[in-house]
Amino acid sequence: MARINEHYRKLRAGYLFPEIGRRVKAFTDAEPRARVIRLGIGDVTLPLVPAIVDAFRTAVEELGTAEGFRGYGPEQGYDFLIDSIRKHDFESRGVSLAQDEVFVSDGSKCDSGNLQEIFGTDCTFAVTDPVYPVYVDTNVMAGRTGPSDDAGRFAGITYLAATESNGFVPDPPAGRVDIAYLCTPNNPTGAVATRDQLARWVAWARKHDAVIVFDAAYEAYITDPALPRSIYEIDGAKECAIEMRSFSKRAGFTGVRCAYTVVPKAVTGQAENGERVPLHALWARRQSTKFNGVSYPVQRAAAAVYSAAGLVQTAQQIAFYLENARRLREGLGGAGFTLFGGVHAPYIWMRTPRAMGSWEFFDRLLAEAHVVGTPGAGFGPSGEGYLRLSAFNSRENVDEAVERIRRAFGS
Amino acid sequence: MARINEHYRKLRAGYLFPEIGRRVKAFTDAEPRARVIRLGIGDVTLPLVPAIVDAFRTAVEELGTAEGFRGYGPEQGYDFLIDSIRKHDFESRGVSLAQDEVFVSDGSKCDSGNLQEIFGTDCTFAVTDPVYPVYVDTNVMAGRTGPSDDAGRFAGITYLAATESNGFVPDPPAGRVDIAYLCTPNNPTGAVATRDQLARWVAWARKHDAVIVFDAAYEAYITDPALPRSIYEIDGAKECAIEMRSFSKRAGFTGVRCAYTVVPKAVTGQAENGERVPLHALWARRQSTKFNGVSYPVQRAAAAVYSAAGLVQTAQQIAFYLENARRLREGLGGAGFTLFGGVHAPYIWMRTPRAMGSWEFFDRLLAEAHVVGTPGAGFGPSGEGYLRLSAFNSRENVDEAVERIRRAFGS
Repeated sequence: MARINEHYRKLRAGYLFPEIGRRVKAFTDAEPRARVIRLGIGDVTLPLVPAIVDAFRTAVEELGTAEGFRGYGPEQGYDFLIDSIRKHDFESRGVSLAQDEVFVSDGSKCDSGNLQEIFGTDCTFAVTDPVYPVYVDTNVMAGRTGPSDDAGRFAGITYLAATESNGFVPDPPAGRVDIAYLCTPNNPTGAVATRDQLARWVAWARKHDAVIVFDAAYEAYITDPALPRSIYEIDGAKECAIEMRSFSKRAGFTGVRCAYTVVPKAVTGQAENGERVPLHALWARRQSTKFNGVSYPVQRAAAAVYSAAGLVQTAQQIAFYLENARRLREGLGGAGFTLFGGVHAPYIWMRTPRAMGSWEFFDRLLAEAHVVGTPGAGFGPSGEGYLRLSAFNSRENVDEAVERIRRAFGS
Repeated sequence: MARINEHYRKLRAGYLFPEIGRRVKAFTDAEPRARVIRLGIGDVTLPLVPAIVDAFRTAVEELGTAEGFRGYGPEQGYDFLIDSIRKHDFESRGVSLAQDEVFVSDGSKCDSGNLQEIFGTDCTFAVTDPVYPVYVDTNVMAGRTGPSDDAGRFAGITYLAATESNGFVPDPPAGRVDIAYLCTPNNPTGAVATRDQLARWVAWARKHDAVIVFDAAYEAYITDPALPRSIYEIDGAKECAIEMRSFSKRAGFTGVRCAYTVVPKAVTGQAENGERVPLHALWARRQSTKFNGVSYPVQRAAAAVYSAAGLVQTAQQIAFYLENARRLREGLGGAGFTLFGGVHAPYIWMRTPRAMGSWEFFDRLLAEAHVVGTPGAGFGPSGEGYLRLSAFNSRENVDEAVERIRRAFGS
């Protein structure tokens, strides 16, 4: 009699995006002629840039030749990619990483979900609220929480409310927790932490011997050079932080799948006998046991992001999406809506009009404007009363969505 | 103070293949002119066939166009691939699967390692010994075992010895266990289960309400049409078995990364309250929370395996590796070595000469014949006294390896 992992039954019915997919499908099945504009799931829409396609294709062709064929690659990723990551993403910001501190993977969703495995199940953790659901759900599945209450808060998690009054960047917990998840630029609010704010987080982690899991999947959208792009720009972060980056939103890789996680060797956890154990060794063991590396042509495609042409071409795509964000912000702001984010991130965090609940507004937006957003409540109780709009779409659709939302709900 | 996952400390020092890699590197650093032939790690050597390269390249180019671009795909995999899998791998053998019972993934290593997450940590499990280390290590990491003894056996695991006397296909456990891992054609022994043997396993699982995790990653190497290729060819297996397949060894995908797992909806586990819960729902939740699908061009490449040209071309590759296996078997058998497997599998399971320990023979084979094998003891205590040789190499290297081994160790 195989017993199931009982913790799964604490999870809410479905992962957020499949639930949105179901509601949209029910609507389009009922109204097949409605031209629905999807600003819900944060999925890129522009094609891969030429520099990436060229490198990707060349690597595929290599695999078809006797000289160029490669089987299993190094589990942590090929040097050609890791070297580019170290140079362009970190050395350019004054951060030096060892080759083997970078772990290439098939996605930040996977990494941020799997990372909790290397910690004890009795570790306590904090998340901001609203939050990317993967951080919470994967810890629930691992048994680090009790059941959830009616608002969706799980017993045992420290929720740090990200609100209008703190600019959606909460302070570190007052008390002690062992692990804190921090995403900046933030999904879903679009808020970005300043250097001072990150420095307070690092100081807190070092004081309390905590680990910060820093999700920088949207780093490429930061437009102010004074803002930190990596947590390692803060002194002391290499002793307490793990950082995740992704090519998904930076280079259109949502369907191609490549990301990476940095685990500096100085970040440690404590064993039962008091010994300090580098988390790097645990993550290396986790990955070499349960993962077999990223597809070789995909790694070549990712490395092409850092080529001279790749840097220019992907920067143009990001500028395009940020211009979409500006139009959403200004177009809807001018019609009386209250909006946040969208300056250093591809997401707009929109207060629902007339204090509607977020799922109510989601349903009405779909029914009356044929526009899909993501209900803020899907990201946690403090997201209630907000809706996330994504800037990933064509210019025409973004402009049209602004018009439709203004017409249906504007003041 | 973040506590680490203490269970990781029960693991042996390193995963088997990195350890072999270290020893080979030490040897080649010391003797840079030695021409080492690698028959250790089971990694394919032939390039991708033209049908796969064409489909792979076309899909890459699609992603570079506005009309053809795709972002996030369905987490379980695209219909075009799942339909081909159902038709060619199962309907052709009289097995009917629902579309959503197939989960496409980036590797059977990942799937076989992650699958245990959906079970309670108090589940008991059985493995054959020797065994693919991932089944054991991932359960150790999850806390389902005690520490290991000197021979490498973990407390709490039921080990079923695969020996010469049972033809390396053990009977089901006498007592009750909740989960049993079964790999056939077997890695590392190359043994394959007959229909009768599998029927006994299925009968046992149904009697004891156990789940069989059936790893058929080497199914394409079965040459006898009477042998079952899927456990679902056995009546009742759809109520008790999960099956994994891979494109790695079947189509040269070790560096491309694609595989799939079948979870029939009738396979259930039990919740604390006695309710029967379909494992399908748990695995779907696990994958949609911690995984984001396989790269789109990779799925197109995998689907090309089932095209008319792809089927012919990949069958030729398998025939090539099986001819290598035959040469290893006959060449070394004729020189007095005792060998098993290599008929329905790309692996030869070789008894070490003069009753040497397997790591001792590994080291001597490397030093004296410059040939890399995999020490049987690395797969479990019952692998002691054996060495696995892989048929994945060029014809020249295989013939040369046979000659060198005969010269150095033949009778």
